[in-house]
Amino acid sequence: MIYLHSMRYSHLFSKTLRQAPKDADTINHKLLTQAGFVDQLMAGVYSYLPLGLRVLRKIEQIVREEMDAIGGQEVLMGTLHPKEIWEKTGAWDSVDVLFKIQSRTEREYVLGQSAEEVVTPLVMQYVTSYKDLPKAVYQSHWKYRDELRAKSGILRGREFLMKDMYSFHENQEDFDAFYKTVKEAYLKAFKRMGLTAKVTEASGGNFTEKISYEFMVLTDAGEDDILYCESCDYCVNVEIAKNNEGESCPSCSNSSLKKARASEAGNVFDLGQKYGKNFDLTFTDRDGNKQYPVMGCFGIGISRNMGIIVETHHDDKGIVWPKQVAPFAVHLVGLIDHAEEIYKKLKERNIEVFFDDRDLNPGQKFADCDLIGIPVRLVVSQKTGEKIEWKERTSENSELLTFDEVLARLEA
Amino acid sequence: MIYLHSMRYSHLFSKTLRQAPKDADTINHKLLTQAGFVDQLMAGVYSYLPLGLRVLRKIEQIVREEMDAIGGQEVLMGTLHPKEIWEKTGAWDSVDVLFKIQSRTEREYVLGQSAEEVVTPLVMQYVTSYKDLPKAVYQSHWKYRDELRAKSGILRGREFLMKDMYSFHENQEDFDAFYKTVKEAYLKAFKRMGLTAKVTEASGGNFTEKISYEFMVLTDAGEDDILYCESCDYCVNVEIAKNNEGESCPSCSNSSLKKARASEAGNVFDLGQKYGKNFDLTFTDRDGNKQYPVMGCFGIGISRNMGIIVETHHDDKGIVWPKQVAPFAVHLVGLIDHAEEIYKKLKERNIEVFFDDRDLNPGQKFADCDLIGIPVRLVVSQKTGEKIEWKERTSENSELLTFDEVLARLEA
Repeated sequence: MIYLHSMRYSHLFSKTLRQAPKDADTINHKLLTQAGFVDQLMAGVYSYLPLGLRVLRKIEQIVREEMDAIGGQEVLMGTLHPKEIWEKTGAWDSVDVLFKIQSRTEREYVLGQSAEEVVTPLVMQYVTSYKDLPKAVYQSHWKYRDELRAKSGILRGREFLMKDMYSFHENQEDFDAFYKTVKEAYLKAFKRMGLTAKVTEASGGNFTEKISYEFMVLTDAGEDDILYCESCDYCVNVEIAKNNEGESCPSCSNSSLKKARASEAGNVFDLGQKYGKNFDLTFTDRDGNKQYPVMGCFGIGISRNMGIIVETHHDDKGIVWPKQVAPFAVHLVGLIDHAEEIYKKLKERNIEVFFDDRDLNPGQKFADCDLIGIPVRLVVSQKTGEKIEWKERTSENSELLTFDEVLARLEA
Repeated sequence: MIYLHSMRYSHLFSKTLRQAPKDADTINHKLLTQAGFVDQLMAGVYSYLPLGLRVLRKIEQIVREEMDAIGGQEVLMGTLHPKEIWEKTGAWDSVDVLFKIQSRTEREYVLGQSAEEVVTPLVMQYVTSYKDLPKAVYQSHWKYRDELRAKSGILRGREFLMKDMYSFHENQEDFDAFYKTVKEAYLKAFKRMGLTAKVTEASGGNFTEKISYEFMVLTDAGEDDILYCESCDYCVNVEIAKNNEGESCPSCSNSSLKKARASEAGNVFDLGQKYGKNFDLTFTDRDGNKQYPVMGCFGIGISRNMGIIVETHHDDKGIVWPKQVAPFAVHLVGLIDHAEEIYKKLKERNIEVFFDDRDLNPGQKFADCDLIGIPVRLVVSQKTGEKIEWKERTSENSELLTFDEVLARLEA
């Protein structure tokens, strides 16, 4: 971990708020603001406070590990793009969400909303032969979209953190094989974040004429409607569906199709040879002929997924973070001086502890625990004596454990 | 470390280039491009390739650790700012390097070049009393400046990664004390990066009427001229100097002032109460009166410092990375199959290895080692037998060591 393992609540500049912001239209906006994870700068733009940044970085790191595991190479591409590369692909005129900037010297730029225009010339300068392929390059970087209406908290931002990977292949078969690899890596990444995603057929949007695949998580805060079958993996965005809700599944015929609201946690575009052709960049294939690379684009919304997790992991008291993305492993509530010693001992064992050392009453501290949503609450009080009270956020029950028992569970 | 510990050269998509780009006007632009660390997207905007991103993240992590050590709290603030907050401080009209954006809905935004306008309302919403102070909040985030001329490689970009910290104090004395703490943390951070910085008096620029302090590293690629004394710490930017080169040091009188070119690795601005006043945000002081906070702004150029390091650490063969910011600890050159085993064993010990497993002649591989600049070169060849050749980038001499001896040196 690149962050401090532990933190005192008294040191933290942000505080939980009694009330959610009035303009909050979704649970993620409401809870993340109230619990002090984010602060809205304007519609569609948020600042990530210390607790929120920890969650964001943990999601990013899960995605990074899964991309590295399948051979992805991490880069960080420029965000300010020259107009010329967007003209080459036609997107300067056709993509309406582009933020366009005019400089003092009258030059025009685009704020990156995706990076095909940058990555294609970047990677192809090093590719001369099929022997240099396949290659997969990714980044986790901020993207910008001139949305007419930004809403749903951090689900749809004008500014958002996205992992975008681009792959380069000698032919369609190689892309198809890599797509299967990425699909498995994606499902693994979502599972680690605590999300269940359905692989959904959708239209290719601005990027391609072909079908694309979306990784959809069921939530009422989503912006898409999907039709899915409960007996098999069949799932399709209603935008391109040929069947209706209630009709028999066209894939297995065993169930009738259900309709649900969902949010797009990730996506895959088969870009074909479009970008190679736009930039006229080729490699020499196995037969000695010049060939355009077949490309794929693979996205995962890092900040959006933080929002999706809150939408799907909360109760009426607050957020319920899945273990792997929680800001801390443990929320230690100190009600007597002895808590300082427990804090010190947990830190020494490299446990990520959030230590509420403030001079407040137990009720206020417990309410903050529930709102912030760290998986395990530990209480050290007069009542607990030499032991420590262990309570999980997902449970109503608590237990009295020794320090060694607490440690054993946390290190399990 | 958040990155893969090791990498095979054959896997890397970027390659070293025979020639430096023709428009490269500085050593950092030339060497970083030729060695495959960065790629220029347009003047002032660069993409960071896998090797370059590793260096950038290591510099960032050093700065993060030093800021955390003095109580800084990491956040990530929005980059797309509403026009209104920049009007409140007068900067919308007075700062000429602001990138201004008009959205489809005619709303106007600013691309962040600094974050006083964001951080002041953000932090002050949680500050009601002097008991909530002091607080220091920082981020490492991309910044944007509409430079008329972007030049000097990654030393002066239109887009650049900067650590910016903002501190809030109940009075001037508290700011002064914190400034001294930050100064020591800065000098420590620069030292860890391999840089020697001089603390230099300068004007406050757009931010303040007061004197500011710059942390200057001597290099001909810099954009500032400083006057300094070799007998004491006296150092001043020529822009505000009252003395000339050759004159006696006004501080110690022991030496005559020298003039040199330097680059600004970091800076400190005493913001006074300006921003509290602009936003009319107050706290209750010890006497029960409403008071504006005294603020400080503390910057370190992360991407610029990567450039400064190259400017100050290279020879005619390539880059010479200081240990703590090198992309890898070891550059392993494999000339026989046995190298695979050494690679595996080093990986198992969590040594960061860059393994040149390509089918190229030794001369080409050694030239790449010198160009890329990793501190230690290990060679496994017919000649080295059961041993391994150890050569440091800063030395002409090599030694034959056993694997255990190599390990002992790397883990020292």
